Amino acid sequence: MEELSRYQQLIDTRLERTLFEGKPESLYGPLNYIMGLGGKRLRPMLTLIACDMMRGDINKALLPAIGIEVFHNYTLMHDDIMDDAPLRRGQTTVHEKWNIPTAILAGDLMFVKANELMMKGEGLARIKILELFNKTATEICEGQQFDMDFEARDSVSVEEYLRMIELKTAVLLGCSLKVGALVAEAEENDADLLYDFGIYTGMGFQLMDDILDVFGDAEKVGKQVAGDILSDKKTFLLLEAFRLANEAQRGELNKWIGHASAKPEEKVQAVKAIYHELEIETIARNKAEEYFMKADRLLEAVNVEEERKQNLRKYAVFLKNRIS
Amino acid sequence: MEELSRYQQLIDTRLERTLFEGKPESLYGPLNYIMGLGGKRLRPMLTLIACDMMRGDINKALLPAIGIEVFHNYTLMHDDIMDDAPLRRGQTTVHEKWNIPTAILAGDLMFVKANELMMKGEGLARIKILELFNKTATEICEGQQFDMDFEARDSVSVEEYLRMIELKTAVLLGCSLKVGALVAEAEENDADLLYDFGIYTGMGFQLMDDILDVFGDAEKVGKQVAGDILSDKKTFLLLEAFRLANEAQRGELNKWIGHASAKPEEKVQAVKAIYHELEIETIARNKAEEYFMKADRLLEAVNVEEERKQNLRKYAVFLKNRIS
Repeated sequence: MEELSRYQQLIDTRLERTLFEGKPESLYGPLNYIMGLGGKRLRPMLTLIACDMMRGDINKALLPAIGIEVFHNYTLMHDDIMDDAPLRRGQTTVHEKWNIPTAILAGDLMFVKANELMMKGEGLARIKILELFNKTATEICEGQQFDMDFEARDSVSVEEYLRMIELKTAVLLGCSLKVGALVAEAEENDADLLYDFGIYTGMGFQLMDDILDVFGDAEKVGKQVAGDILSDKKTFLLLEAFRLANEAQRGELNKWIGHASAKPEEKVQAVKAIYHELEIETIARNKAEEYFMKADRLLEAVNVEEERKQNLRKYAVFLKNRIS
Repeated sequence: MEELSRYQQLIDTRLERTLFEGKPESLYGPLNYIMGLGGKRLRPMLTLIACDMMRGDINKALLPAIGIEVFHNYTLMHDDIMDDAPLRRGQTTVHEKWNIPTAILAGDLMFVKANELMMKGEGLARIKILELFNKTATEICEGQQFDMDFEARDSVSVEEYLRMIELKTAVLLGCSLKVGALVAEAEENDADLLYDFGIYTGMGFQLMDDILDVFGDAEKVGKQVAGDILSDKKTFLLLEAFRLANEAQRGELNKWIGHASAKPEEKVQAVKAIYHELEIETIARNKAEEYFMKADRLLEAVNVEEERKQNLRKYAVFLKNRIS
């Protein structure tokens, strides 16, 4: 893990410096505030790991890597307005601490700054990086809109849900890895394999997240257990349960889902009982494992010595252990 | 005006085609809606005029020109949320017709699409265009935040106001012209002269706007006369009046400004009376004229045959006549 620590250090050090300077302070303050809230810095880590794996100079990948982290935080800032969320990483959200107009505008400015950082990728790769970045940003907007639309809809298919999380979450992991490969001027085919590795890994992570929300250890997860059930969130678990339910089970699900319950405990227990009957946890874990295995096979196919792939493998395992 | 009509036609034709296709429709609908609301398409016109003036191929400038128009409409979409505006070009605003989350997200996507269109500028100019575009977008965010901050402040200096309108409005005109020059691969010096021509012209237009809001012909202006006075807007006129007022006049201004009046007519008459005493209209017209003359001199300095400058001159006069 020595190299991984070095990447993390590089990213953290760059982020500790004031990223954005400008006036008015009422606009730039929120940018530096959200960037200072911390986080794993997963996406820039992926960029540096992929760049190094493909024999690139990680110093040339650092600013685009930071750009992706800035972009990610920009989407969080705007998502928090849309979801009316009070907290982000345990701290007051920007629109609560300042106000909605400022959170809209500060987010808009962050996207400009992310674009500027993406352009710091040197040489021939620059245009390819920007094209990938714009494609990814488009997909993330689409994913967020699907997510909002699904909330208002009566039924959503499992396939629609999987496509939504691919757009909303997984493509940015794929993009992070591919940007690293592009900076390293890797072969197109290898860059694409890494992109797909990111997609499948991201899908797997999201399913693990869905599982842990319901079946996880409250203390380890660090948030209300089964919040997804209480908020009627159309996750993989719930959609799969509706798909597999017999008439009685569907009736029981409909009794609880879509209605606030005076006794939240009771609602959670009732829905979990059906999940148990239908073996939803196992199905979801198998599905996640399927994604992780697909990701593994793609990584195997990347045309570089086995040894060079170890950092990415280790990092993926490290992340899996943190959430499972 | 034959060539100007041809440019306008080219832009309108491109905008009449559905600009954006994708799913979900709930996200792409708002984009095509706001782009369909019309407008003079002033900014793309400036791009094509500048490109042609500098002996460029206007077909190569068309998509970046459209990109600037998309960007402009994106800023309007987000500004309308921030200002809680019900109407835009006489039609329902996006956040009113759909909802705020969709208007935030559709705006975010438009900014991505604008970036993609800016990248369609061919060849060597591409990176320069993107750098200019990001710089301009940053400044426009800053201008909008200054504008919002000024509303909440007790006093704002005339210099601060002028800097704010430069950022919020004028830089995009400068950018539009310079993008055209960059596509034409004009000399840096000529491109910069055109940029500054846009800045000064934009400043002049904004001052004319301020003047016409108060002193314009209601029917011609097409909106409530003296809306700026009724909403206590800190325009050039009001700030200059405060600066020049003697004690009695300042007292009278303070009596009206910052207080809603039961009789709007009376408030407008009282403030206009002070403007009259202080000759504010003349001062403002002279200031605007000063900007237009500076712009003229910059255009004279552009290193290209006089004949090639005629379209830009004509177009500036045409715009001036439309608003004055």
